Amino acid sequence: MIITLTTDFGDSGGFVAQLKAEILKLFGESVKIVDITHSIKPFNAIEAAYITRTTIPAFPENSLHIVVIDPGVGTNRDIVAVEYKNRYIISPDNEALSLIEPSKIIRIDKSRVNPNSSSTFEARDIMVKAAYILHKDGINSLGEKKESLGYSLKPQKVKNKIKGKIIYIDNFGNCISNINKDLLKNGFERILLKNLIFRHLEKTYHSPTSSYKALINSAGFLEFAYFKKNFAQEFEVGYFDEVEVYLKQ
Amino acid sequence: MIITLTTDFGDSGGFVAQLKAEILKLFGESVKIVDITHSIKPFNAIEAAYITRTTIPAFPENSLHIVVIDPGVGTNRDIVAVEYKNRYIISPDNEALSLIEPSKIIRIDKSRVNPNSSSTFEARDIMVKAAYILHKDGINSLGEKKESLGYSLKPQKVKNKIKGKIIYIDNFGNCISNINKDLLKNGFERILLKNLIFRHLEKTYHSPTSSYKALINSAGFLEFAYFKKNFAQEFEVGYFDEVEVYLKQ
Amino acid sequence: MIITLTTDFGDSGGFVAQLKAEILKLFGESVKIVDITHSIKPFNAIEAAYITRTTIPAFPENSLHIVVIDPGVGTNRDIVAVEYKNRYIISPDNEALSLIEPSKIIRIDKSRVNPNSSSTFEARDIMVKAAYILHKDGINSLGEKKESLGYSLKPQKVKNKIKGKIIYIDNFGNCISNINKDLLKNGFERILLKNLIFRHLEKTYHSPTSSYKALINSAGFLEFAYFKKNFAQEFEVGYFDEVEVYLKQ
Repeated sequence: MIITLTTDFGDSGGFVAQLKAEILKLFGESVKIVDITHSIKPFNAIEAAYITRTTIPAFPENSLHIVVIDPGVGTNRDIVAVEYKNRYIISPDNEALSLIEPSKIIRIDKSRVNPNSSSTFEARDIMVKAAYILHKDGINSLGEKKESLGYSLKPQKVKNKIKGKIIYIDNFGNCISNINKDLLKNGFERILLKNLIFRHLEKTYHSPTSSYKALINSAGFLEFAYFKKNFAQEFEVGYFDEVEVYLKQ
Repeated sequence: MIITLTTDFGDSGGFVAQLKAEILKLFGESVKIVDITHSIKPFNAIEAAYITRTTIPAFPENSLHIVVIDPGVGTNRDIVAVEYKNRYIISPDNEALSLIEPSKIIRIDKSRVNPNSSSTFEARDIMVKAAYILHKDGINSLGEKKESLGYSLKPQKVKNKIKGKIIYIDNFGNCISNINKDLLKNGFERILLKNLIFRHLEKTYHSPTSSYKALINSAGFLEFAYFKKNFAQEFEVGYFDEVEVYLKQ
Repeated sequence: MIITLTTDFGDSGGFVAQLKAEILKLFGESVKIVDITHSIKPFNAIEAAYITRTTIPAFPENSLHIVVIDPGVGTNRDIVAVEYKNRYIISPDNEALSLIEPSKIIRIDKSRVNPNSSSTFEARDIMVKAAYILHKDGINSLGEKKESLGYSLKPQKVKNKIKGKIIYIDNFGNCISNINKDLLKNGFERILLKNLIFRHLEKTYHSPTSSYKALINSAGFLEFAYFKKNFAQEFEVGYFDEVEVYLKQ
């Protein structure tokens, strides 16, 4: 059994260890726990959207993924279990799931999962326990179906123009948009980001013709990069900055 | 076999990997190594006290816990093995153990454990080896009993007043005191921290009546928090700041 | 099977998780993945040299070690598999391997390993797959032999003088040189670093006679340290600063 963890708990405290301890107690020592990251900026669920979208499908089928960026802990916001490409994700229903298109959504019945949950650490008291119930009895045993998720980050398309935005900035300063390669498959005329114009895509970070560039990254998203430099710093690009693509007509 | 690691080695060097390599060589590949944290501020053993106190009891019984915040490495300070709620901790005898009440304390006989230890990396040369001896032959085989630990962080109680302090500040800026919920079970009149007064406890980080608040956290300690803000920064609270509780008379 | 990872990917993104997902898919859940570090400064391969040199031999024989600090990703720089003390390392042929003296070097035939590799994530598409081929079919099946590695960090010795440099600064500010204890075994007259002179070596970080000191560290390298202080900050020492040793004549 593989379980991954994505949180904003940071690496300096004991929260992550408490989650792992609970997982080990329920699933036994044979469980394989993989940290995706615990360095999401506190409460910044959007940052988890791209990471969740690109890492979870890479894991084997039937793996379980717990995502906890949860400013609403202790309130009545939904915690959901979703099926996505035959993997399972448990998360509060927030921006962290906004790039996912699940085949099934269950609103977790918290009082059924753990009537004695603390109100300050539902990741441990509800989400890990829900993961174990899902593993034992299937996703449907966690609660009732929910029609759709609360958040979506899909780009807008109006006529020949796609309006997207920067949704992730990686460790190297590469800036990733929410525009998938499928949207560009019939060609484009130009891509605009701040005062930069891109008229073609490069194949690799290293290219002889340009130092900064647009490319389709290994996850299939439109990305902006600067060879051996930090694109985000160099051009002062931040989260949610607008990306416009003018398609071929 | 579960072994956890808590150190101030940081995540950027090779020290942690060398510990893990040694553990794998002694215990074999079936051992389950869990990082609690390696981000304790260098030499700041107090920071490990709360983490140790709250995470270790969460792990299964008979698990082994190595805690290395050790400014005295290479000197003759004690390294101890302690039994605590049927878990086992190996650590230098310093502030990191100051919130633990062990049922047994053994002063590790270093020359028996490893007469050829380096003087600069006793975590690897003494502590991991001691963990393996404990696992194989029991805690008593590590050395002689010791009466008590060198450090304690218990709050003082004088008449109807409890004097505690802030002993941990988490990733979200929540400030945690050394005052356990048991001390408050008969009610209190007011709690003082810097120029703030709290007259009741909230149940959750999110509450309609106040933005900053006192509550009993999921580990059972009195904690101060600010909904979606950083309490420590907002009120300039630091380690060891005094917390006073006036109990009901 | 033990596989370690050393990268400059950082802990905040999804790259490391994608590597692990790929490893789990190829090797199965019984594989033991150990993070050495993901906090190498982006593109700073030299920083990985000391970590690689000191951690890899600590792991059991036949363990596999993937090292990815790779500013040249997507270009035609070599990716190599090397045998070193009966362990195996897969890495781009750069400074990260400059303290290693391998018994065998294979230039990995990338198109044989994965003709469909992305050009932006060869760590996943080439290096993990090469690790699996090495595990299954042996190192020789990965490509042709290569005579020598591209980089070496050995100190120079001219007459009675050794010219080395600072090649690693650890989490505590200790400064480590590329000078091995074997070079000093017949004694020395003095060691120079910036405007500091050292005439003898201490045995431990704590010593009664001096607050800052030179010593042979647990990995066998000449290191400079300051008891309970940060040597690098205190004396403004940086990577590549020169270390001169005048040997006894």
